Amino acid sequence: MSTDWDRVLSPRSVALIGATGRADNPMARPLRWLTERGFAGRVHPVNPKYAELGGVPCVASLAEVPDGVDLALALVPAERAAAAVTEAGAAGAAAVVVFASGFAEVGEAGRARQDELVAAAQAAGTRVLGPNCQGLYHARSRLFATFTGAGERPLTGSSGIAYVGQSGAIGGSVLDVAAERGLDLSAWVSTGNEADVSLTEIGRHLVADPEIEVLTVYAESLPDPDDYAALAAEARDHGTALVVLRSGRSEPGRRAAVSHTGAMLGDDTAFRLVSRRHGVVLVDDVEELLAAATMLRGRRGPAGRAVGLVTSSGGAGILAADRASEAGLAVPELTAETQQKLARLVPDFGAVANPVDVTAQLFNDGGEFGEVCGIVRADAAVDAVLVLLTMLVGETAMALARDLAATVTEQGPDAPPVAVVWMAGEDGTAPARALLREAGIPVFSSITLAVRVLDAVATPDGAAPAPVEPGVPVPGDGWDLLDALGVRRPVSSPASDPAAAVAELGGTAVLKAEGLDHKTEAGGVRLGVTTATAAAVHAELAALPGVTGVLVQEQVPSGVELLVAVDGGRDGWPPVLTVGHGGTATEVHRDVVHALAPVTLETARAMLGELRCWPLLAGHRGAPGVDLDAAVDAIVRVSRACAVPGLGELEVNPLVLLPRADVSGVAPQTLDVRNATRSDPRHAGAAIAVDVLRTEK
Amino acid sequence: MSTDWDRVLSPRSVALIGATGRADNPMARPLRWLTERGFAGRVHPVNPKYAELGGVPCVASLAEVPDGVDLALALVPAERAAAAVTEAGAAGAAAVVVFASGFAEVGEAGRARQDELVAAAQAAGTRVLGPNCQGLYHARSRLFATFTGAGERPLTGSSGIAYVGQSGAIGGSVLDVAAERGLDLSAWVSTGNEADVSLTEIGRHLVADPEIEVLTVYAESLPDPDDYAALAAEARDHGTALVVLRSGRSEPGRRAAVSHTGAMLGDDTAFRLVSRRHGVVLVDDVEELLAAATMLRGRRGPAGRAVGLVTSSGGAGILAADRASEAGLAVPELTAETQQKLARLVPDFGAVANPVDVTAQLFNDGGEFGEVCGIVRADAAVDAVLVLLTMLVGETAMALARDLAATVTEQGPDAPPVAVVWMAGEDGTAPARALLREAGIPVFSSITLAVRVLDAVATPDGAAPAPVEPGVPVPGDGWDLLDALGVRRPVSSPASDPAAAVAELGGTAVLKAEGLDHKTEAGGVRLGVTTATAAAVHAELAALPGVTGVLVQEQVPSGVELLVAVDGGRDGWPPVLTVGHGGTATEVHRDVVHALAPVTLETARAMLGELRCWPLLAGHRGAPGVDLDAAVDAIVRVSRACAVPGLGELEVNPLVLLPRADVSGVAPQTLDVRNATRSDPRHAGAAIAVDVLRTEK
Repeated sequence: MSTDWDRVLSPRSVALIGATGRADNPMARPLRWLTERGFAGRVHPVNPKYAELGGVPCVASLAEVPDGVDLALALVPAERAAAAVTEAGAAGAAAVVVFASGFAEVGEAGRARQDELVAAAQAAGTRVLGPNCQGLYHARSRLFATFTGAGERPLTGSSGIAYVGQSGAIGGSVLDVAAERGLDLSAWVSTGNEADVSLTEIGRHLVADPEIEVLTVYAESLPDPDDYAALAAEARDHGTALVVLRSGRSEPGRRAAVSHTGAMLGDDTAFRLVSRRHGVVLVDDVEELLAAATMLRGRRGPAGRAVGLVTSSGGAGILAADRASEAGLAVPELTAETQQKLARLVPDFGAVANPVDVTAQLFNDGGEFGEVCGIVRADAAVDAVLVLLTMLVGETAMALARDLAATVTEQGPDAPPVAVVWMAGEDGTAPARALLREAGIPVFSSITLAVRVLDAVATPDGAAPAPVEPGVPVPGDGWDLLDALGVRRPVSSPASDPAAAVAELGGTAVLKAEGLDHKTEAGGVRLGVTTATAAAVHAELAALPGVTGVLVQEQVPSGVELLVAVDGGRDGWPPVLTVGHGGTATEVHRDVVHALAPVTLETARAMLGELRCWPLLAGHRGAPGVDLDAAVDAIVRVSRACAVPGLGELEVNPLVLLPRADVSGVAPQTLDVRNATRSDPRHAGAAIAVDVLRTEK
Repeated sequence: MSTDWDRVLSPRSVALIGATGRADNPMARPLRWLTERGFAGRVHPVNPKYAELGGVPCVASLAEVPDGVDLALALVPAERAAAAVTEAGAAGAAAVVVFASGFAEVGEAGRARQDELVAAAQAAGTRVLGPNCQGLYHARSRLFATFTGAGERPLTGSSGIAYVGQSGAIGGSVLDVAAERGLDLSAWVSTGNEADVSLTEIGRHLVADPEIEVLTVYAESLPDPDDYAALAAEARDHGTALVVLRSGRSEPGRRAAVSHTGAMLGDDTAFRLVSRRHGVVLVDDVEELLAAATMLRGRRGPAGRAVGLVTSSGGAGILAADRASEAGLAVPELTAETQQKLARLVPDFGAVANPVDVTAQLFNDGGEFGEVCGIVRADAAVDAVLVLLTMLVGETAMALARDLAATVTEQGPDAPPVAVVWMAGEDGTAPARALLREAGIPVFSSITLAVRVLDAVATPDGAAPAPVEPGVPVPGDGWDLLDALGVRRPVSSPASDPAAAVAELGGTAVLKAEGLDHKTEAGGVRLGVTTATAAAVHAELAALPGVTGVLVQEQVPSGVELLVAVDGGRDGWPPVLTVGHGGTATEVHRDVVHALAPVTLETARAMLGELRCWPLLAGHRGAPGVDLDAAVDAIVRVSRACAVPGLGELEVNPLVLLPRADVSGVAPQTLDVRNATRSDPRHAGAAIAVDVLRTEK
C-alpha cells in the first residue's frame, strides 16, 4: 500500500482515540503537547466520557469528525487497539499509532492479537505504527505524537539529525541527550514491534527530506535486508549520512533480544558488508551514535583515516596518539610547510610534528589557538583534527572556543572535520562546550570514545559490486556447479580398472573412497598410488564401511591452500564470499575475509592482500609466490555461484595454489576441482564438502 | 637518601622561595591557598623585595627563618633553581619543589642545568620534586604546594583516591573531574621531569597510607621497573588498589613522548606482565582511570568476569550484553532461585534471565528496583552488576538512586561491585548521579566505557612466579646454553668425513653450511643426504660464498613447530618468555603468548593452551596430539635462560614437537637443539639464531 508519509508527519488533523483526562498519566502527554506547543493542525480527542479535554472539544467517536483525520493515536489498551484501527481507517487516517504493549512481545496470545491488528489495518486501508511503540515526533510540524519522557523538553530546535528505531527507550535517550547538548532532533520515530510499518520504510522517507542531514537508527532486527540496503543506498543518493546502532549481535544479546522482541536476527557479516558498501557508519552505543551524528552534520565525514592531533598538554597528545594508533588510524607527521607555519605560533618547548603541543603557555600569552588548528586542518596529510584540552576553564575556555569555532566556520564544511576532547569538569567548561557544539564541533570527555567515533566515521566504503552475471544453471552437484562456473579441476574417473586409470594419469595418482563423511580421517584417501599398487589399494578402500565407490584422481604437487566459500544468502541478506587460509589451517588460524558476492577481480585481489597469510601467497622467506592471477580468477568464478537459485553454501577447501610460472617454471595455472557436492537449499547448517580444488596444468 | 615523606606531605613549615606579589600570576596561587585554606603549619614567603605578602611577613632569605623549614617551593626561573635548592637544603628542607620548566625537556643545555640541580640537592642533603612539575597537594594537611588550575576548587573532601604522575596537565584533569563528581582527591603529586624523586618513590609512600584506598598513576616513563614492581607489590600488601594509565605505547605516541619528556620507554609486554602479576588495573584514558578508581574504592574489585545486567529498557540490556561479550566478559544466566525471586518483582513482560529487564512499568508502579539489583548482586554466578537506565529523570530518578544506594550500602562492600550507565541528560539526573557516586557507585553515560572499565578491573592476575633457579653458568654459545639448561638436541658433528658421519647417523642426515645469515634461503641446508651423496653435497655447500664450515646433523621427522624465546630483560624490565607457532608460520600468523620468565610447568602448559594453534598440539581433525609433557619441559628449561647474566635473547625456532608415544608408537621425547649462538649482551636488537631445536629420541 502506498502511504502518504507527509500526511503522517505533518497531518492536518490528529485524532486521539481513548484520550485520557488523568493528567499524571503519560498517555495524557500527546494531547497536552499537541495543544500547547504550536501544532497547527486540528486535534480531536475521542472519548465518550468527556465533553472536552485540555480545552479541546471531545467527540464520542471518530464518525463525528466531518472531514476525517490524517493521523490517529490509539491511546487504548491492547484488547481495544484493533477496533481503534478500524475506526481510524474508516475516518481516512493515513496511519494509526498503537502505543499499547501486550502483543507479539508477550508470546502466542499476543502474536495472535498483533495479527488481528494488521488484518484490521489492511481491511480499513490504513497503516499501523507499533504496537508497543512510543510514537513519533516531527519538529517542522510541531507534531508530538508520542509519550516519551524526553518530550518534556521544549524541543523548539531542529538540528538536522533524525532518529528512527524499534526501541522507544533508546530513542528517548537519543532525543534527551541530544537536546541537552543543543541538538534538538528534526524527527523521531519509535517503531516498536513493527507489525506493519518498519524503521526502514520510515527511514527511506526521512532521508529524502532535505532538512535531514543525518539519520540515526537503532535496530534490534532488520527483517527485510533488501529494504535496509535500499535505505542505505537512498540515504547516500540524497547526501544524508546514515548512522546505525544495531544490537543483539552477541549470544547473550540475542538471548535478550529474543525475549525482548521475538525477532530473529540476520547475519552480522552480511549486515556489515551491506552497510560498508553504502557508506553507513556503524556505532556501538548511544554516546557514539550522537557523537557520530554531530560529526557528520553538514558533511560526509573525513576523507580518510589520518588524524591531526592538537593539544594543550603533551601527555594528552601522547594518549590520543596511542589510542588512535590502536584503532588503526594514522597519525602522520605534518608537512614541512605546515611545521614551519606552526613554529611561528607554538612556543619553543612545544611540538609541531603531530601531535602538535601548543603548551599551556600559548593560552597564558593569548596566542592564536584557532589559527594553529586551522593550519593543521589545512595540511594535505590530515583527514580529521582531534583537539585535546586539559585544564582550560572559565574565560580562557570561552576565548579558546570562540577562536576555534570561528576558524572552523570560516574554513567551511569541506575542510576536514574537527572534534574536541575536553578533560576538565563540565562546570568550568559548559558554555565553551555549548559554543563548540553550536559550531558543529562534537565535544567529548573521553579520548577513547572520541577515537572510536573517528574510527567509525572514517571507515572506508566497502568494495564496489561486481556486475550482475547471468543466472548459473542449477547443477546436479558441486562438481557440475564448478564446471558451469568455468573452474577447471583435475582429471578423475571412477576406478573400473584402477591400474589403467592410474597409468592414464601418468603413473601416480590419488585414490579416494566415496560416500564417507570425513574421508581423510577414515583412511579413505591414499596419495602416491602407482599402477603396481592400484588394485590392492582400490580393494582396501572399497572394503571400508560405508564406501559407495572409489575414484582415481590426478595427484598434484602441494602448494598454499585456500578456503573459498560462498553462501546463497541467509535470512534475506545477500550472499557472502569467504576467502581464507585453507586446508588444516582453516580452524586453527581463522584467517578469513569476507565480501559480498559476486566479486570483481580487484576485490578478489584485495581480499587476498588482507589475509594474514598473504606473505605465503606473495612469496616469503625466499619461497616463490603463488600464481595470483589463477587464484583471483578462481575466486571470482566461485563467487558467481551466488547466482544459483536456492544455493545453500558452496565451500571449496582446499584450493591449492601453485607457484608462479616465472619463478618455478610451472606453466600459468588454471583451476580444477573434484568431489563437490551441494547442500540442500535452505537446509539449516548444511555446508558443501568440496574436498579438493586445485590449480592445475 | 632516606626521606621523611611525612615532613613533605604534612610539613610544619613551608618556604616559598621567590614568592610573587602579582596576584594574577599562577605562581601566586600556592601562597594564597596556603594562607587561606586551613594549612596549620608556618608559611614563609622568601623575597627581599617585599616586607609581607598575602598578610604574611616576608623574609629576604631562608637563613632568617630560625627553625628552618620542612618543605620549600622554588617559585623561581630555571636559572635560579639550583641556588634555591641549595638555600632550602641549608635550611633543613626535606624536599624542594621546582616548578620551572627549561630543563631536560628542552634539550642539551637544559639537561646540563638539570644535572646541576640534582648535584645541588645532593650536596645540600635535600630532595627535588620536578623540575617542570606542578607540585603537590595533600588533603589531610591542607597542603596546597601546587599551582594547578584544578586547585581553584575548594577541595575540602578526601575520597580515599590519590594521584601521582609525571604530567601536571593530566593530573589537573584527574583532580578537576574527580572533584566535580564529588571525589576530592586525598593526595595529588605531579613529578614532572623526575630529576630526583620518581612517581614510584612517592607512590610507595602513598599506598602505605591507610587513608588512601586507590592510587591512580599516570606514567610517561618508568625508568626503574624494579621500583614499579615494588610499588605494585606494596600496594597489594597494603590493600590499596593501583590503577595505572601508561602512555607512549604506540609509535606516534613514543614520537610525542620523546619530544615531550625525552624519556625512553621500557618494554610494553614486560610492563603489562609485571602489572598483571601484581593485580594492577591498567586503563586507557582519564575517564577510565577515574571510573576504575571509583569502582575500586573500599574494595578489591570484582572476583571474576561474570556480569549481571539490570535494565529499565530491553534495548539497553541487549546493547550492554553485546558490548560485554565483545570484551570477553561473561553474561551468565542467573540461577533458577534468583529468577524465581525476581519473577515476583518484575512485570510479566519483563525478563529475569540476564539481562534482567524490569521495564519502565516497575517505576510507574513504585516497584522495588533496589531489591531487584540486590537479588542479582547476591547471585553466586555474578561478579559485578551493571545497571542500565534510560529516560528515568527528576523525582523518579532520585527515588531510584536512593533505593539502589541503600541496597548497595546495606549489602556491604564485600558484595560484587555495582556500576550504572545512565542514558539520559545530565540536567534531569544530576542529583541522582551524585547520590549514587556518594554511595561508591560509578555512573557512566556510555555503555562502551562502562564495559571497558569492568573489563579492566576484572582482568585476572597473571601467573604466579616460578621459583628462583640457581644462576646458569655463562656458556660459550647458544648450544652450550641449551646443554646447560638440560635441553637435549640432535647429534651433530663437523663433517671431516661426511659419508662416515652420515652413516653414523643412520644413513640419512642433514648437511648445513655454517656462517651464513639466512642459510635456508641461501641454499645452505640440505635434507635427506645419504652416504652416497654426502661427499658431493658437502663439496657444494663448502663452495658457497661466506661459508665457514659444514655440519652433519641427524634428520628428525617433521612435527608441529613452536617458537620459544626468552630475553634477558630490556631497560630494566624483567625477562619475558615468548611461546608461539614457529617455523615459517612465525611471521605469518603472529600467534604468540608471553609470560615473565622463568615459568612453572603449569604456566608453560597454560601458555600452550592460549595459542590459536593449540588444536594442532592437542590433536586436530584426527591427527594425534604432540608430546605435551616434552614440550612443557622444554619451555620451562628454555625459560631458565633468563638467569644467565647479561643474556640478550635466546630464540629457539623451531622447536619441533613429535606425536605422543601412546598415539604414534614413538617413544616419549626429550629435546635437542643445534646451531645456537648467543647475542652480545645489551646489543640493541640482537637476537639469537637457533636454527633447529627438535624433540629427539
